[in-house]
Amino acid sequence: MEFKIKKINVRTGGILIALMHVRDADLYDIYSMDRVKIKKGKKNIVVTVDITTSSKLVKPGEIGLFHESFSILGAKGNEKVEVEITKKPSSIHFIKKKLSGGRLNEKEMYSIIKDITEGVLSDIEITYFVSGCYIHELSLKETVALTKAMINNGEILKLKKKVVVDKHCIGGVAGNRTTPIVVSILAAAGITIPKTSSRSITSAAGTADTVEVFCKVSFSIKKMKQIVNKTNGCFVWGGGLNLAPSDDKIIKVEHPVSLDPVGQLIASILAKKRSVSATHVLIDIPVGRDAKIEKMKNALRLKKKFKEVGKAIGLKVKVYITDGSQPIGNGIGPILEAREVINILKNKSKDRYHDMFRRKCLHIAGDLIELTGKTKKGKGYMYAKNILESGKAYTKFKEIVKAQEGKVRDPDNMRLGRFRYHFYAPKDGKVTFISNRTINRLAKIAGAPHDKEAGLYLHVHKNSKVKKGDKLFCLYSDSKQRLEFARKEYKSWGGIEIK
Amino acid sequence: MEFKIKKINVRTGGILIALMHVRDADLYDIYSMDRVKIKKGKKNIVVTVDITTSSKLVKPGEIGLFHESFSILGAKGNEKVEVEITKKPSSIHFIKKKLSGGRLNEKEMYSIIKDITEGVLSDIEITYFVSGCYIHELSLKETVALTKAMINNGEILKLKKKVVVDKHCIGGVAGNRTTPIVVSILAAAGITIPKTSSRSITSAAGTADTVEVFCKVSFSIKKMKQIVNKTNGCFVWGGGLNLAPSDDKIIKVEHPVSLDPVGQLIASILAKKRSVSATHVLIDIPVGRDAKIEKMKNALRLKKKFKEVGKAIGLKVKVYITDGSQPIGNGIGPILEAREVINILKNKSKDRYHDMFRRKCLHIAGDLIELTGKTKKGKGYMYAKNILESGKAYTKFKEIVKAQEGKVRDPDNMRLGRFRYHFYAPKDGKVTFISNRTINRLAKIAGAPHDKEAGLYLHVHKNSKVKKGDKLFCLYSDSKQRLEFARKEYKSWGGIEIK
Repeated sequence: MEFKIKKINVRTGGILIALMHVRDADLYDIYSMDRVKIKKGKKNIVVTVDITTSSKLVKPGEIGLFHESFSILGAKGNEKVEVEITKKPSSIHFIKKKLSGGRLNEKEMYSIIKDITEGVLSDIEITYFVSGCYIHELSLKETVALTKAMINNGEILKLKKKVVVDKHCIGGVAGNRTTPIVVSILAAAGITIPKTSSRSITSAAGTADTVEVFCKVSFSIKKMKQIVNKTNGCFVWGGGLNLAPSDDKIIKVEHPVSLDPVGQLIASILAKKRSVSATHVLIDIPVGRDAKIEKMKNALRLKKKFKEVGKAIGLKVKVYITDGSQPIGNGIGPILEAREVINILKNKSKDRYHDMFRRKCLHIAGDLIELTGKTKKGKGYMYAKNILESGKAYTKFKEIVKAQEGKVRDPDNMRLGRFRYHFYAPKDGKVTFISNRTINRLAKIAGAPHDKEAGLYLHVHKNSKVKKGDKLFCLYSDSKQRLEFARKEYKSWGGIEIK
Repeated sequence: MEFKIKKINVRTGGILIALMHVRDADLYDIYSMDRVKIKKGKKNIVVTVDITTSSKLVKPGEIGLFHESFSILGAKGNEKVEVEITKKPSSIHFIKKKLSGGRLNEKEMYSIIKDITEGVLSDIEITYFVSGCYIHELSLKETVALTKAMINNGEILKLKKKVVVDKHCIGGVAGNRTTPIVVSILAAAGITIPKTSSRSITSAAGTADTVEVFCKVSFSIKKMKQIVNKTNGCFVWGGGLNLAPSDDKIIKVEHPVSLDPVGQLIASILAKKRSVSATHVLIDIPVGRDAKIEKMKNALRLKKKFKEVGKAIGLKVKVYITDGSQPIGNGIGPILEAREVINILKNKSKDRYHDMFRRKCLHIAGDLIELTGKTKKGKGYMYAKNILESGKAYTKFKEIVKAQEGKVRDPDNMRLGRFRYHFYAPKDGKVTFISNRTINRLAKIAGAPHDKEAGLYLHVHKNSKVKKGDKLFCLYSDSKQRLEFARKEYKSWGGIEIK
């Protein structure tokens, strides 16, 4: 059937929609949310139909196209196009199968993830998929199929290396900026580590936000490959790449009901690792009150699944369960974390907490070195320590930063927020709890991660002994208003317990 | 926190959305799809937040409101408003409970349906609810709770009558316009029957479309009550009222995956009956190939549930399983069906199929009369027949049409489509199948129900003996193009089988 294109200059935000008049819909037996294929010359797209009873937007004989659709078709408006009714995509049948308790094979999972990636499935349809996966938990086979489908529906960084390592932290812990140090040690050891990182979601800064203090983090896959081939490592913002892109759309529909099905979590993490050609991966699962994983039982369950799925897709996975009961390191916020990273790389010891943080980095780096077989079991830590203490890791860090078009600056010369506010101990005692959630929130209120200079410096950690009036932490911001808001919020929440 | 309203002159189509800049979202810990309460003077609304990183739409300090929201608040733009973060509505916890296999009590179900009705829940959240109800099928208790929640979250037609009857047909059968006749007989018998009807969805005409040939069908609850109090009956379009309004939003998210959970189907039908104060209800379930219900087993299962739920909410329900294997009556389309209704009311017998249709009407009317106790069992049919044959039903029909501001016209003077096309038997034999789906589609292609004069007249029914070249049916339309399209479609589908 022939229609005339009517351009509607509105973006729908991903999904491809066409508007049709009710008289045409009745004529051709089309219902709201059905799909049609629009052909214009050699180009064609499948769009979801929305039906209108008013002739103001489209008249009978016209098909209204929103921005995304007419830009794909290269339409100018008023052209005649051929419109064909298409069957429901078969991915919908597979979603229904999963919803009804069936098991999905690789082909079916691939079809669903492909259609999510390409904007063929609507939020409602993706929600049915997530519901099915939540209620009928993904089996090992299905999780593997999902992981593979995510890998194969995104870009892949191909590296001609036998061993490629990567790491991932489940998150939720403030500070904890181990990645720049681990990458520098591994790359200095001659091991390829093409690290992609996220920006902050709930935390005060992600690795991408922190490294951005020194250099660019947004690169294409092609440019990333050049950096890795040159330096063995990189710190690239993953959100700017197209690795396993279905993930974001799935997470979007999970948020309103706070779902986080285990199968999807594992598939999404491991797919992104496999997409950069990783062969050996370390997963850091911090466990503790106010961390993302609060119970050891759940961490162990996750550990088992990570290893199983990793094995099935040819990844050697080591899972490292760590203490997530308090922030790691003293600085929280991009510059404050960057400063700490540089101090460790320059082997400047600051205090006990700084050293704990340093040891965690060495454990992760050491475990990864052992995992690749470069050293024997039990020798990785010392190997990593030697690289760090020799200054080779710092040299490597500077090299990567340079390859990312930046320059390492002296942390002591970096400007922190113009305004600062100290928080003091209200009584004598021992610090028994520091909430990751509170610390992250305060740093975000101060302006992190958008304002690189905003954040928080912790003067105490768990088990610190304090006297009334001792400094607990200092908040930095360029906005007095934000500091004042943070002060009030801390007063109402608390977050540091002294007993 | 204080924000300045920025008006965004776009409709979102129901759900209340506000746009916020990412800097404010970070400051106040608000994530996409979280909810905030906006207070302006004495008015306040809860809206779902969408977050933007561009300052083009809203700047930090501004809150962008779409048409639905600023019209509720009576906002002009640029006013300062107080914005408060609200917790997730508790309905979301109940949805998650159902999704996880829990059972919902009356209070929980009420909360979900209330929030669906008021636009508090998004399509994604409603989809999780439907998924939960689909996978963990609603128990009798839950179905009853859902029915009550639907009734209590819509308008109610209060009638001061001890006995109020109603009927409903599950649908899918072409023709089958029993309602105008049944209502006329019942109302003439002195029984109150406040009938609301739908317009066509997949069929060529709904009762509302057919009665509209003679009079208005769109009235307020108040006006509907006046009509019923005056005449005992009415034919009002249900879509124009506000009875169980959550239903439409639930059906919208069910369509893409073709879900139709039994619990929801029953709740939606019975809620609408109870909302017009019905006490005695007859449900017509046509069963047959190409009808909505194709298998007797499913019809019997539905019958049992209808009776159970009806009993629990104080409705006497009679379920009548009928032959749905072919169209009922000869005329398909608004005027063609209206003509047949008038002929039956005027006791003009046309042919065998016309008489079969008439008998079905009398059975339904008779059963309803018996159900109310007005006659003994087995005497209802004759009672209804006497009313019909006495002319009282026709008088009553004219009376109701007059109350609905219209006038009954002579069907023989009604204009049918200017163009007509006959379809002929391709060979000698017996008609073994007439597809409801095909017949409805052809009438819709011809222009029904929008074009009242469009439709189809059947010259044969199942078991008719035909000779090659005999008329099978005639299609009427005001558009030659539509007729031509219908002809081609019929050629490719078939739909009438002769053996």
